[in-house]
Amino acid sequence: MSARVRVAELEDFCRNALARAGACDCHAAIAAEALATTDSWGVFTHGSKLLPGYVRRLRGGGIAGDVEPRVEAEGPAWAILDGGSALGQVVGVRAMDEAIARARRSGIAFVGARRSNHFGAAGYYAARAARAGLVGIAMANDTPSVAAPGSRGPVTGTNPLAYAIPAGAGDPILLDIAMSTVAGGKVYAAHQLGRPIPDDWIVDRQGRPTTDASLYPHHAALAPMAGHKGYGLALLIESLAALATGAAMTTRVGGWMFGDPAAPTEHGAACLALDVAAMAGGAEAFAGRVQTLIDEVHAAPTADGVDRLLLPGEREWANRRRALADGITLPADVVAALAPLADELDWKTDWLPRKP
Amino acid sequence: MSARVRVAELEDFCRNALARAGACDCHAAIAAEALATTDSWGVFTHGSKLLPGYVRRLRGGGIAGDVEPRVEAEGPAWAILDGGSALGQVVGVRAMDEAIARARRSGIAFVGARRSNHFGAAGYYAARAARAGLVGIAMANDTPSVAAPGSRGPVTGTNPLAYAIPAGAGDPILLDIAMSTVAGGKVYAAHQLGRPIPDDWIVDRQGRPTTDASLYPHHAALAPMAGHKGYGLALLIESLAALATGAAMTTRVGGWMFGDPAAPTEHGAACLALDVAAMAGGAEAFAGRVQTLIDEVHAAPTADGVDRLLLPGEREWANRRRALADGITLPADVVAALAPLADELDWKTDWLPRKP
Repeated sequence: MSARVRVAELEDFCRNALARAGACDCHAAIAAEALATTDSWGVFTHGSKLLPGYVRRLRGGGIAGDVEPRVEAEGPAWAILDGGSALGQVVGVRAMDEAIARARRSGIAFVGARRSNHFGAAGYYAARAARAGLVGIAMANDTPSVAAPGSRGPVTGTNPLAYAIPAGAGDPILLDIAMSTVAGGKVYAAHQLGRPIPDDWIVDRQGRPTTDASLYPHHAALAPMAGHKGYGLALLIESLAALATGAAMTTRVGGWMFGDPAAPTEHGAACLALDVAAMAGGAEAFAGRVQTLIDEVHAAPTADGVDRLLLPGEREWANRRRALADGITLPADVVAALAPLADELDWKTDWLPRKP
Repeated sequence: MSARVRVAELEDFCRNALARAGACDCHAAIAAEALATTDSWGVFTHGSKLLPGYVRRLRGGGIAGDVEPRVEAEGPAWAILDGGSALGQVVGVRAMDEAIARARRSGIAFVGARRSNHFGAAGYYAARAARAGLVGIAMANDTPSVAAPGSRGPVTGTNPLAYAIPAGAGDPILLDIAMSTVAGGKVYAAHQLGRPIPDDWIVDRQGRPTTDASLYPHHAALAPMAGHKGYGLALLIESLAALATGAAMTTRVGGWMFGDPAAPTEHGAACLALDVAAMAGGAEAFAGRVQTLIDEVHAAPTADGVDRLLLPGEREWANRRRALADGITLPADVVAALAPLADELDWKTDWLPRKP
């Protein structure tokens, strides 16, 4: 059953659940804001649904609740962070904030992190840079779940990549994608509904395309986005998030959801920030160019049944405005994930089903 | 009819053709090396086949044969070049070399260019950074030929993106991709052979998928790679190559092949270089990590009929080694493109068909 909740209350709930599990107040607040923001975008696969997994690892010790990420190597326009196995959101925010500060001085900056954790939606960090007036790019590696062209099993992680482009007073252009054709969650959902899937979503244990969603994840891997193109981009992300940072690579990254909750996952992450306003001769000049592009996309002729072309992120920002005004309707799978935590917290709520 | 030629002779031919058309010796040499290298990779769509188009624009004045690109704005880790409408290869090389030099000081650098031209294979510039020990990323915008999800016509250019990762003494990992499902050249080729094409290559004037290759380009647009993902990445490339640099954006970019040869195309380009060796604590440390990744990919189990997984670029570097040892077999379409230039140059050759 779905449930309607105010964004602030959802964030409060997440903060309390994380703090109760051992995160210090500051870390709990950072991760809670990230999760609630992601839900407000309507990206429910990467919002508060992740909370039980994070709580489990905080309790198990695989996520450190009170270790601050710190700069362990740096230069004028870059830094490598030791994430200290803190919540991935804490590492991601710290990495992007470092990148933003350095890019303001140097024009561009790269900040990578080792000893991170699953950091949720990459777009959250990219959007943070755009809100500060910079182009933000965020990426992370993950344990392999995606095949390469010709492979018999997974070779790379979904290795998310997100970017955000500041658009003056308007919403940033915002894209957040995995290097697989679709997210694993979509394959699960099709299986739960008993639906066949298109033949470019997963490949079976022999490396052949299949439409049988039940095979995933134990007997199938996700297919790479656009074949060799997604595979190739996943290796770029692996190179920047893990090879440059010293994070675990590919199979050495721990599975955050099902793996031993006492063992750090050793994810890698990387953030870039670019001070495009400085490059373009001022924030107004850049914003004007972005607006020209946005207007052009909106004015483009559309296929039958399509009202208007959307910019990447346009739907998410509209979702967020509605969520802030009217609350979020959490889908049933998210509600089911959160309900046991509400019982443990003895959370007074009318939006989550509670044990009698 | 195909033709066999030594790499050095092909490069010499390109240099002479460009110089005869008005490029100064230095520009002709830079572009010739780029075109011959691209052919040696086996990427014949972006090698010397482009020569007649460049010669036409040099003669027409749309490409300036003797204007040096110059830095017109800069900061510690970035620069914006005025490309001066020089050959795109000259602008691209200058941009990447500036990025390499600045990244050696700052750790990372961004160099964008306005008033560039069609620059051929983006991978050439990325590989240049990798040969210098840095990660290189190169991109450019182009006049729209690719649909967006739901559009009735082209919205973005193919907007190529390439990266290269240095691998110690080994060949760099190298990927060079367009943001369309396939390059327009593949659609032309299918049409010439009278073959139907898969339904995710192009969309017709109503924005519907079609398998009729004859519609492209006048009555169809290329489909974006992986739908909204390719569309979104194309807009990132547009933002960095054009919005940040002040280059022409989307429809304002001139068509380099069929457009008025006297009018500059005003392409934008952008290069990033990252000193990953510094970040990783030394070139050896980084090379070791890359080798681990390469070994892991090579050891991955493969589907039936697949000997070994390839790293991006592995096939191209093998082609180049063969080309340097045994020469390049230029396909018939390239030979046909070059033959008229050989007549004009009165080029003494046994590898191009000459008028009697």
